[in-house]
Amino acid sequence: MGDSRFLRACRRERTDTTPVWLMRQAGRYLPEYRAIRARASLLDICNRAELAAEVTLQPVRRLGVDAAIIFADILLPVVSMGIQLEFAAGEGPVIRDPVRAPEAVARLRRPETEEIAPAIYDAIRLVRRELDGKVPVIGFAGAPFTVASYLIEGGSSRHYLETKRFMFTEPRAWDALMDTLSDVTTRYLRAQVTAGAQAVQLFDSWAGALSPLDYQERVLPWVRRIVAELRPLGVPVILFGTGTAGFLPALAASGADVIGVDWRVRLDDAWATIGLERAIQGNLDPAVLLAPRDEIARQARAVLEQAGGRPGHIFNLGHGVLPETPAENVRYLVELVHELGASSTAAGDGGEQAAVDEVTRER
Amino acid sequence: MGDSRFLRACRRERTDTTPVWLMRQAGRYLPEYRAIRARASLLDICNRAELAAEVTLQPVRRLGVDAAIIFADILLPVVSMGIQLEFAAGEGPVIRDPVRAPEAVARLRRPETEEIAPAIYDAIRLVRRELDGKVPVIGFAGAPFTVASYLIEGGSSRHYLETKRFMFTEPRAWDALMDTLSDVTTRYLRAQVTAGAQAVQLFDSWAGALSPLDYQERVLPWVRRIVAELRPLGVPVILFGTGTAGFLPALAASGADVIGVDWRVRLDDAWATIGLERAIQGNLDPAVLLAPRDEIARQARAVLEQAGGRPGHIFNLGHGVLPETPAENVRYLVELVHELGASSTAAGDGGEQAAVDEVTRER
Repeated sequence: MGDSRFLRACRRERTDTTPVWLMRQAGRYLPEYRAIRARASLLDICNRAELAAEVTLQPVRRLGVDAAIIFADILLPVVSMGIQLEFAAGEGPVIRDPVRAPEAVARLRRPETEEIAPAIYDAIRLVRRELDGKVPVIGFAGAPFTVASYLIEGGSSRHYLETKRFMFTEPRAWDALMDTLSDVTTRYLRAQVTAGAQAVQLFDSWAGALSPLDYQERVLPWVRRIVAELRPLGVPVILFGTGTAGFLPALAASGADVIGVDWRVRLDDAWATIGLERAIQGNLDPAVLLAPRDEIARQARAVLEQAGGRPGHIFNLGHGVLPETPAENVRYLVELVHELGASSTAAGDGGEQAAVDEVTRER
Repeated sequence: MGDSRFLRACRRERTDTTPVWLMRQAGRYLPEYRAIRARASLLDICNRAELAAEVTLQPVRRLGVDAAIIFADILLPVVSMGIQLEFAAGEGPVIRDPVRAPEAVARLRRPETEEIAPAIYDAIRLVRRELDGKVPVIGFAGAPFTVASYLIEGGSSRHYLETKRFMFTEPRAWDALMDTLSDVTTRYLRAQVTAGAQAVQLFDSWAGALSPLDYQERVLPWVRRIVAELRPLGVPVILFGTGTAGFLPALAASGADVIGVDWRVRLDDAWATIGLERAIQGNLDPAVLLAPRDEIARQARAVLEQAGGRPGHIFNLGHGVLPETPAENVRYLVELVHELGASSTAAGDGGEQAAVDEVTRER
């Protein structure tokens, strides 16, 4: 299993082709996922191990991706911290009583590991058993800044004003909040690894709302602590964020093994900046999967060319699969990356156009 | 007037202190602006030269900024192209019949210069007369991508999916749309300069939603054409976008004299990337103006330190002043930049802390 394409690439070892998985590969764009959602809410799925496991496995069966990522929501752990979490239809997460004062931070519980999201641990065990070594399982958690932004804003946000206002005006309460969230995140990820996760990804999806200075001073120390505490477990840690083109050196300084980047930066520029001693994950614009096939092929090829066939590239989107995406385009992409990646990782630059032509012709 | 701080900095000439103006310095955070909005809609103000001029002058009087920017909305020109534009309360611009098919692009009018937004030309003349050489007047327009995103989405957007879908699936209609918008933009800015604007800014606010590849292939050629067509007028052109840390070389390749950057990149990194033969504008996070004074001072100082007292830095926010901002904080920032900038542009690094202390004490 340590010999899988995905785990080898995390360690920057050579692979037969470029490994590929997709953020939100389990989700609304899949008819089989919508069928389960018709009878179970998002939180139902996260709280019932057999449903979470089933949904995790759906894209592995359909797409031939090189890793499964456990199905969960990054806000799941906050329920065990005493927060009321809802998912309003079409609105995303809603927290009716946002954390906007030092007292609210002080009231947050620090749950024991087994309280955090126990169904997820069970789901990981089920998925491991079901996959039987076919592909590895990735565990994940929200990074402290991104989770804090939901707690403070009360949901999704465009400008993160309340979050920043809190960070600027209540620096001690901010640190206390980061400290609590970092502890919970570490416990949660450790338990996922114990249950069988073979890699973990920290989603700091909204870190790109900050300036490099604020990220470096007020967020990075906590991410670094989490990464250091996971280090003894011996599994690769992936740190992902969007809009981070301006502070990639800080992301690399986290100590994570793999840095996930979005499409707003060229993969070659990003890799040069974070340093070739890290693996890199990304970075096709998810909107490209709404395009015609020849455009998908052109853009996927551009990402692979920027990776240059170098060991340590894990192909992914720059963020999650969009609900509007045709499932057959996702499958096309996965096959195409495997085809093109085989020629670029092995034979160098030759034969790529031939591989595109071939995959395009098959459809 | 060509000797003003702002225009000298656009040409990278030495100034007595760092010039500063702020995007959306005229706006809802100002009580005198809200007083006018109580009796006039946004479009009323844009369509009545004396109101637009008055609102343009308000922040110059209150803040002591180094430039006035004419008050208008980047979508104003689309009305003359046959688009129905409304501003819904709290919702921003709404276009009920978005442009989502090649036929809709073909139906767009190419207005004559005098049809585009004639009240704005008159307002510029009024502002020039009123300012009487005190500070220069900046004209502006939305860049084609950003205006197209509103036309296609029908309003503001988070993911720009319809825009990207259109760009990917209708490349010829996309080019036709960019061509039309570029023509209108050039005519509009040329007329603003004729009316008296001494510099112009192109707002490509949402360009950062794209990948560097898509920006370079599908947007940059049009921006470059606009800049080239404005060149003979002899006024500086500022190109501004947010989230552009990953494609600053492409922004520099536009030929613009000044590149405006947001807070998601360090100013020194950005300047090194765009090259020192361009001036740079930015880049304090607007949310910092919601912070306590000592934090505002600390962060403004960091921006100035990154600029290193080098000629060609125009201090600005990384995007517009937020409506929630206390007006007195904005004034504090402008005074502080003038104080700190005087020591950093003249005496080098010494005396900055003293200047902060002094300004802080005055309040």
